[in-house]
Amino acid sequence: MPAAGSAFDQLHQHLHQTRLLGSISSALYYDQNTVMPAAGASWRGEQLALLARQVHERQSSEAYAELVAAASAELIPDSPPERRRNLQLLQLELERQRCLDPDLVAALAQAQTRGNAVWQDARARNDFRAFAPVLQELLHLRRQQAKQLAAAETVARSPWEILAQPFEPDVSKARLEELFAPLKTELPALLEQVAATDTPRTAAADLPEALQEQLCVDLLDSWGYDSERCQRSQSAHPFSCTVGPQDFRITTRVVPGQPLSAFLATAHEWGHSLYEQGLPRTDDHFFPWPLGEATSMGVHESQSLFWECRVARSRAFAERWHPRFCASLGSDPWGGSHSFWRALNPLRPGLIRVEADELSYCLHIVLRFELELALLEQEMPVEELPGQWNQQMQDLLGIVPATDSEGCLQDIHWAEGLFGYFPSYALGHLMSAQISATFEQTHGSIANLIASGEEEKLQAWLDSYVWPLGRSVNGEELVERVCGQPLSAQPFLTYLETKVEQLLTST
Amino acid sequence: MPAAGSAFDQLHQHLHQTRLLGSISSALYYDQNTVMPAAGASWRGEQLALLARQVHERQSSEAYAELVAAASAELIPDSPPERRRNLQLLQLELERQRCLDPDLVAALAQAQTRGNAVWQDARARNDFRAFAPVLQELLHLRRQQAKQLAAAETVARSPWEILAQPFEPDVSKARLEELFAPLKTELPALLEQVAATDTPRTAAADLPEALQEQLCVDLLDSWGYDSERCQRSQSAHPFSCTVGPQDFRITTRVVPGQPLSAFLATAHEWGHSLYEQGLPRTDDHFFPWPLGEATSMGVHESQSLFWECRVARSRAFAERWHPRFCASLGSDPWGGSHSFWRALNPLRPGLIRVEADELSYCLHIVLRFELELALLEQEMPVEELPGQWNQQMQDLLGIVPATDSEGCLQDIHWAEGLFGYFPSYALGHLMSAQISATFEQTHGSIANLIASGEEEKLQAWLDSYVWPLGRSVNGEELVERVCGQPLSAQPFLTYLETKVEQLLTST
Repeated sequence: MPAAGSAFDQLHQHLHQTRLLGSISSALYYDQNTVMPAAGASWRGEQLALLARQVHERQSSEAYAELVAAASAELIPDSPPERRRNLQLLQLELERQRCLDPDLVAALAQAQTRGNAVWQDARARNDFRAFAPVLQELLHLRRQQAKQLAAAETVARSPWEILAQPFEPDVSKARLEELFAPLKTELPALLEQVAATDTPRTAAADLPEALQEQLCVDLLDSWGYDSERCQRSQSAHPFSCTVGPQDFRITTRVVPGQPLSAFLATAHEWGHSLYEQGLPRTDDHFFPWPLGEATSMGVHESQSLFWECRVARSRAFAERWHPRFCASLGSDPWGGSHSFWRALNPLRPGLIRVEADELSYCLHIVLRFELELALLEQEMPVEELPGQWNQQMQDLLGIVPATDSEGCLQDIHWAEGLFGYFPSYALGHLMSAQISATFEQTHGSIANLIASGEEEKLQAWLDSYVWPLGRSVNGEELVERVCGQPLSAQPFLTYLETKVEQLLTST
Repeated sequence: MPAAGSAFDQLHQHLHQTRLLGSISSALYYDQNTVMPAAGASWRGEQLALLARQVHERQSSEAYAELVAAASAELIPDSPPERRRNLQLLQLELERQRCLDPDLVAALAQAQTRGNAVWQDARARNDFRAFAPVLQELLHLRRQQAKQLAAAETVARSPWEILAQPFEPDVSKARLEELFAPLKTELPALLEQVAATDTPRTAAADLPEALQEQLCVDLLDSWGYDSERCQRSQSAHPFSCTVGPQDFRITTRVVPGQPLSAFLATAHEWGHSLYEQGLPRTDDHFFPWPLGEATSMGVHESQSLFWECRVARSRAFAERWHPRFCASLGSDPWGGSHSFWRALNPLRPGLIRVEADELSYCLHIVLRFELELALLEQEMPVEELPGQWNQQMQDLLGIVPATDSEGCLQDIHWAEGLFGYFPSYALGHLMSAQISATFEQTHGSIANLIASGEEEKLQAWLDSYVWPLGRSVNGEELVERVCGQPLSAQPFLTYLETKVEQLLTST
């Protein structure tokens, strides 16, 4: 423990209290999305705004900046490297805060609120022209923000890169283009291969809501869900959130007509939660310091995708769970475990990103990444977005949306001015595949572990090598540390090729 | 609306923000008692302590005191009386805060925490001697507190009276003794009358948990529960709380072996919530001002008891709901609606206050009131408490607990140094009966309205005459305003006599 009264110690107390306030917001967010009555929304908005103001003040005050400076001045050559890294990350955050003109921050907050409202309406009415001006405004403000933030950067970065830093530290366009290039060529080919094969369509089995709920409970139980530290509720959109160092929540919901949706969403959100549960908590280097936090959205997504795609959508998992599904239901509407596995993996290009399968998902991301660059850095007029979107859909996925609501208006991200976020979703797929390949090189087949119900070995390994890294490394460094190789698209493509081949086999 | 920038306007903003923070605590409390995993408790404690500190600072700071003073100085002869009353109530609160030595406040907080912990353990082990020293300490600190608070009082009040003010404004010992005297003579006689009559014991019907839940939903639906503004969840102990001006929560739980408990608890908590829902919210005189708050614990309890006892435990209600209970269950384990009514009203003296029936409940309160006075003001040694408790139980209820756990250790109140709270529970019974009698004088029999399922008329009347009063009057003044008569025990006793007579009739 640091000496009482040292700047480091005071800073620890300061961060602890900031984290308390932030986690109160998380608890309110959870309440809002699980049980809060609709009429409570406006007051809840005021509560959250008040907390956000307090957190912002604590993170940008002069007193806080002095505390960080004083704690940094206390560093000596023998100081633990964790302390040095924590202080560096805090300083970087502070410098970013300081570069920003408060007027711009306020204008952005207003534009985001307006953007969200206009987008909701424009999407409902399929009216891109109504949305275009507010998107234009958001792009303008974000470009200004990037310009101001450039002063805090230690290396030269483009506007898009600067805006992407909070989601994926140290990410660069060139690196993403390099990683995405093989996806652009190989994934459409795989999709064509599937389309050319006349696989039997599986009739959608209908699973009663109570049964879906029970299967979600069974899944979590089999994966070590601890009700002393975790809570699962229902919400309109599934999410995972951390309310305290020992308080983890996830939500799912039963979707009519999509009988496997709740089950797979549970696997996905539990993956997010396991990562949070495995972040380092003890010791004064970690909680509530940066090193105790998730390092990037890509890494976060890699953990949710690992449990959803690598485990719950795997053949071995389908074979193990098929009898249980049938026993609960009293029949086998799929006609065998192979068809059940196919039902868990519908491979068909669709218009909507959040409903996309493993083959087409990354193509949705490539499309968005390229259009973001065009809008933000290449002076593409906003008016051209729908046409460009549809053209890219045709080129990459071979389908074209009939409406903008199902096209460039489908996601909330741009409506709130979130540029630079989408690539993390694709990076999650690549990271999950590469980490999985590394595991298999030393510990043998994941499928075998799943077949014998030993997923706790996967969990123990991630808990030893991945989760405790926190923000000591960025996403790419994490992959290198864990895998001994730089991040690459190859493990993901190899995994998909094998999976597609097996899926297309009749039994 | 007040002029922008006036002290009144600034004070409004200040109170609004204080209320926001307070209601965040309510939301966290609700979460804690409904879904929070056990391991989240310690962090939740820190979150709540942080909010409590913020609220306390806002309510006791010099800046706030100056704001109240400045807003009071803005009063002119033509100022609305509501504004004057609001400022008076705020000033009184402030003066109470200021009289208190911060060291005493801290010592009390510590003693309360220790008291709770020691009591939990002492009750579990039936060890009053372990609890005695901490009770002694709490009495000592509360006496000191009362001495300090005396400086804020405008009339002479005894220590017990001063401590009771936050729960029941303007309450006096003499008045309580006057109100309770008829209860002490009449209730034991009524209990004897019941005991002497050999009424058939109703076999406890077992109601499945899902059915109990459904009946609670049906009950709330029939009473105008609006899911846009309300939420019902389950918790270990039923409670009601207000999370925002349009966000009302209640909880209940199914108790094994007590098939009607959840149903009656739902009626009770909904009564609390209806009062909160009916408090004045609009206009700058009310929310978030004192006038927008509940005026006393007695009045609050009168509203919950009205819906629980006057409505849900009534004969007309039993007759209307008996067919529904039987239809849901597919049988009639009670053997007719009269026996069902008896099952809703078990009249039998018991050891535990929270399980007591309408006849014996107030006697539990009289006992506690007299023992509190003896401990706090009449120098009764703490060691004599168990003996005195058991003697009073014998005198008032004719039964004696075999252990202190079921005797003087049963309630949490004294373990947290809460003296002056208990009488409000009894006042609630008296107020509910008197308000009911007034309603019947002008609008006819409540039983008839219940028989025809017109409880919304009761609700509309309370919503016109009782709930909007807020803190414009204290509890006794509220009764006088609504009933045109001072509060008295007579309507309650008359009501009970009639009910007992009807219950003892065979059909």
